Amino acid sequence: MINMVLIGTGNVATHLFHAFLTTENVKVIQVYNHLEESLLPFKKHTATTTSLSQIKDADVYVICVKDDFVAETAKKISFKKGIIAHTSGSVELLKSSAHSAVFYPLQTFSKNVEVDFKEIPFCLETSNKGDNELLEGLAKSISNKVYFISSAQRKKLHLAAVFACNFVNYMYSISEDICKENQVPFDVLSALIKETAKKATLNSPKDVQTGPAVRKDQKTIQHHLDQINNADYKEIYKLLTQSIINQHE
Amino acid sequence: MINMVLIGTGNVATHLFHAFLTTENVKVIQVYNHLEESLLPFKKHTATTTSLSQIKDADVYVICVKDDFVAETAKKISFKKGIIAHTSGSVELLKSSAHSAVFYPLQTFSKNVEVDFKEIPFCLETSNKGDNELLEGLAKSISNKVYFISSAQRKKLHLAAVFACNFVNYMYSISEDICKENQVPFDVLSALIKETAKKATLNSPKDVQTGPAVRKDQKTIQHHLDQINNADYKEIYKLLTQSIINQHE
Repeated sequence: MINMVLIGTGNVATHLFHAFLTTENVKVIQVYNHLEESLLPFKKHTATTTSLSQIKDADVYVICVKDDFVAETAKKISFKKGIIAHTSGSVELLKSSAHSAVFYPLQTFSKNVEVDFKEIPFCLETSNKGDNELLEGLAKSISNKVYFISSAQRKKLHLAAVFACNFVNYMYSISEDICKENQVPFDVLSALIKETAKKATLNSPKDVQTGPAVRKDQKTIQHHLDQINNADYKEIYKLLTQSIINQHE
Repeated sequence: MINMVLIGTGNVATHLFHAFLTTENVKVIQVYNHLEESLLPFKKHTATTTSLSQIKDADVYVICVKDDFVAETAKKISFKKGIIAHTSGSVELLKSSAHSAVFYPLQTFSKNVEVDFKEIPFCLETSNKGDNELLEGLAKSISNKVYFISSAQRKKLHLAAVFACNFVNYMYSISEDICKENQVPFDVLSALIKETAKKATLNSPKDVQTGPAVRKDQKTIQHHLDQINNADYKEIYKLLTQSIINQHE
């Protein structure tokens, strides 16, 4: 049985708490928040405290607070013997404890949307290899997708996510703009959008690239460029088309 | 009861045929292909023919042949009285018949992957308004998403799909490249990729744009640019970041 203390009561903490409620090998023995009222939803399930100096002895402390407060929170509980793990993707492995760790679920969480952790990847890192097994056990008790990723790799992963998510969303946004301009409901593209995403997770995206660029179909490319009014969008169409051609040369 | 003749036996024809097998208001009374052997899988269900001059009288003829052969096939059956519809997204509404139509399922089809037509949008167009009801009934018997889209709009839709699918896939491809370079399994991003796609179909993508660009987080942007080695990717990161900033100004 892994005894765990949860530090924080926000979205990530709340979702994790509910996920661990039903696991057999993990028990959340205490939840901390500096405000008593934030602890109310947890009180019927487990012990709570508003003071970091009052936290119980545990195998692992999971810090789910805003990025800017992770380091100072970890420092305040560094007197404890268990593993001190944080859940932030952009905070490096901390040096304040001999048993620091990262326990980072790579997904966006909304307060009232239920989460199936089974499909959410956990990116783990430890300062002490001896802690790998416990941390992995913790993650595997709620998720099927568990990875050990170093702080350096995590930075690159963040960059990769900008392309795969933020920039992808911007492509959707341009697409919606073109639809709106022409009174075509953007909804028409929903099935294709979901299928494209699904295909990329089952294949190497490079291998399943389709469209006029990879076919070097200059007639269609020119025809498309002629139809774009927005100067930014035209530049983007040109640059991405050329880059796809370069990648497949 | 709508009587239908299916012209062609490729992916689209095969998937449509199976979908219409279970509908109550549509009957595929005949399937055509110029090769006898291509008709074998259909023979146990319905009549078949290898000659366009032998096709039966029907309410609607659905042409599912390669784009380049659509016009000539339609011409050959233009002596028929029913609606002559084609299923290609890039072929305009034909002028060879008084009852031309477009019956275009906006999705990619693979031979052995089962298709749930319910979620696949059908883009319809007719040369004759009086045919709208029949064509709509045909589409609604297998799909929940039926739209009337003009040939002019269909062109814009094709452009919009380049952004929402082809360019999106290229973003995935760049992301995979960055992961590979740093020994991070691309699979880590699968959940986030699917969630991003899903979110875009439930919201206006512009409203749910996240990432350093929309936050104007220059520190992170510069940090990311410093990490990109590939010249194309660096240009793309710069241009998309600037364009996101412009869009949200």
